Amino acid sequence: MAIRTRITDMLGIEKPIIQAAMGWIARSQLTSAVCNAGGMGIIETSSGELGAVREEILKMHDLTDKPFGVNVAQAFVRDPKIIDFIINQGVKFVTTSAGDPKKYTALLKEAGLTVFHVVPSLKGALRAIEAGVDGLIVEGGEGGGFKNPQDVASMVLIPQVCEAVDVPVVAAGGITDGRSMAAAFALGAEGILMGTRILSAAESPVHNNWKEAIIDADSTDTVFLNRSGPGPALRALRTDRTTRLQKEGIENIFGEFAGTQDVYFGGNLEAGIALTGQVAGRITEVKPVKQIFDETLKEFGEVTGRLAKLSSREAPLSK
Amino acid sequence: MAIRTRITDMLGIEKPIIQAAMGWIARSQLTSAVCNAGGMGIIETSSGELGAVREEILKMHDLTDKPFGVNVAQAFVRDPKIIDFIINQGVKFVTTSAGDPKKYTALLKEAGLTVFHVVPSLKGALRAIEAGVDGLIVEGGEGGGFKNPQDVASMVLIPQVCEAVDVPVVAAGGITDGRSMAAAFALGAEGILMGTRILSAAESPVHNNWKEAIIDADSTDTVFLNRSGPGPALRALRTDRTTRLQKEGIENIFGEFAGTQDVYFGGNLEAGIALTGQVAGRITEVKPVKQIFDETLKEFGEVTGRLAKLSSREAPLSK
Repeated sequence: MAIRTRITDMLGIEKPIIQAAMGWIARSQLTSAVCNAGGMGIIETSSGELGAVREEILKMHDLTDKPFGVNVAQAFVRDPKIIDFIINQGVKFVTTSAGDPKKYTALLKEAGLTVFHVVPSLKGALRAIEAGVDGLIVEGGEGGGFKNPQDVASMVLIPQVCEAVDVPVVAAGGITDGRSMAAAFALGAEGILMGTRILSAAESPVHNNWKEAIIDADSTDTVFLNRSGPGPALRALRTDRTTRLQKEGIENIFGEFAGTQDVYFGGNLEAGIALTGQVAGRITEVKPVKQIFDETLKEFGEVTGRLAKLSSREAPLSK
Repeated sequence: MAIRTRITDMLGIEKPIIQAAMGWIARSQLTSAVCNAGGMGIIETSSGELGAVREEILKMHDLTDKPFGVNVAQAFVRDPKIIDFIINQGVKFVTTSAGDPKKYTALLKEAGLTVFHVVPSLKGALRAIEAGVDGLIVEGGEGGGFKNPQDVASMVLIPQVCEAVDVPVVAAGGITDGRSMAAAFALGAEGILMGTRILSAAESPVHNNWKEAIIDADSTDTVFLNRSGPGPALRALRTDRTTRLQKEGIENIFGEFAGTQDVYFGGNLEAGIALTGQVAGRITEVKPVKQIFDETLKEFGEVTGRLAKLSSREAPLSK
C-alpha cells in the first residue's frame, strides 16, 4: 500500500515517514536504511561533530540513490559553514530546529532547498510560518529528546497547529505504527516522524542494551528532566541516574552528555542520559526499518478501513 | 450521523461520548444536558459532598429519561453507603476511580450494574481487568484533574491498553472534537470522554471567568502539580497561584482545594486550583452540549471519510 500526501510529493519519497535526526545516531548506516525503505532519512548535526557529519553526508551518496535530508540543530551548530556544505552536497531537504527559524530559512530556500522547521507549540509554528518554511515537524511532549519545558501532547498540539497553518505538518511524538499514524492523520498531519521506533531498529547503531531497555520499558518508564532550566528540557529513559536527576535537579545539563558515547554505543545506560520517548512502552521487538514501515502502512490501511465502516451502523465496532 | 460501538450498546446511549465526572461540576444541570444530547452523563462524588450528590441523583430522574451514571471516586468517598444508594436509585452505570478496582466491582456487578474503572496506565488497566470490570476509561496525562504522577500521553497510552485488553475502552485526555475522536478511535477506543470541553459548555455551572480563561488559553497554559506528592498529582490551569505552586511545591494538596467554591462558582481563579486539560488550547467558543456532540460526530464522519480515500492514491491528501 502506498500513500500519497503533500509530504511525499514535496520530498520525493514513497512513504510519508520521516526519521528523527537523533544526535550521534542518525548517521549514514541508519539514515540510508530509512531512505532505502522509502522514508525520509535525515543526517543529524546536534552532536556538534561537524567533521564526522560531513563524512556521513558524503557516504550517503554511496549508500542510497534516494533523497535524504540534513537537520540543522541551530543551538548545537556554531559553524554556519555547514549550510554551504549542505547546499554544495546537493541535499534538497533540510530541517531546522532548536533556534530561530528566520536564521537560515531564506538562505536555504534561495538555494532551492525544501525547509521544514521543528516546533513544540503553536507559537513556534506561527513564527516558522512567518519565516517562510515549506512545512512543519510538530513535536508532542511524549516524544524523546530535547523538549519545550511547557510540553504539549500530540493529541492536542497536532490538530491545534494543523488548524492554524496551511503548510503540511509532520506529526512527531508517540508514533510507532499504523494505529498511531492513522491517529496523527486524523488530527490533520500528512506525514509522521519516528524517533524511538527507528532508534530501536535493527540497523540502528546504538548498543543492544539500549534497544533491550526500550523493549522492556513500560510507557511510564521515561522522565522529563530540567523543566526549569537553565538549558534545554528533555525526555529520557528512566534509569537510576535520571531518576536522581529528576529529583535533585540538574546543574549543568550539557555536562550530563559527557558520557553519551558510553551510553549510546558502550551500552552503559547509567553513564549519561538516553533520550527516549514514552512510545518505548509500545515497542516489543527489534525489527529492520523496512519491516517497520511496511507493517505501519499495512496497519494504517486496516485502521482507516475499519473507521470508514463505522458510519454504516450495521454492527457494533469491535477493536 | 450515528455511531454504534460496544460502548453505545453496553450503556444504551446514542453517541459514544461520556462526560468526565468533574467534582462539584458534574451535577444534574450539566449531566442531564449530556444525557439529553445523547451522551452518557455522570454524576460526581469526588467533591465528597454525599448529601448534595444524593439530591442531584434524585433530580436526574426529573431532568432526563435517558440513562445516566455515577462516579465513585474511592479516595474521596469514605462512606460506603453511597454504593447502596446508587444501586437503590436504579442507576445502571458506575465508573470507579482513584482506588483499588477490586473494592466495589463485584458488589456493583452482582447488583446488575455495568462498571468501568478509570486508569492512567497499563498496570492500572490490567488490575481493573483482573477485578472484572466491563470496560475502561483510559486517561492520558494531557487531561485535566487528578493524575498519575508518571503521566503517559493518550497517543501512547490508549493503543497500549487497547492492544492488551478485550473490554471496550473509552479514551480520555485531549479529546474535544471529531478530529480527536477519530484519532482516539484509530488508536483503538470505542468511545471518548470529554472533560474540559464539557466544563466550558453553555450548560456548565462554572463561573464565566473560568470558561473565558479556557477560551483564552493556549495549549501550553496548564501546569502539572505535585508530581512528587504527598497526595495526588494534578493538571490545572496556569495562573499566578499555580505557577507559584509548581515552582515552590505544595505542602498540603487538599488544603489548596479549600477555595474551590470561590474558584469554580465565584470566578476568582486565584483562590485555588482550576482543574483543566491541555485541550483548553483548542477550545474557542462556549457552545451547548448538543451542538458540541453533533459537530463532533459530523467531523468524525468527515475525517474518517477523508482517511479512507487516502489509499486510492489518485491525488495527494490535503488537510
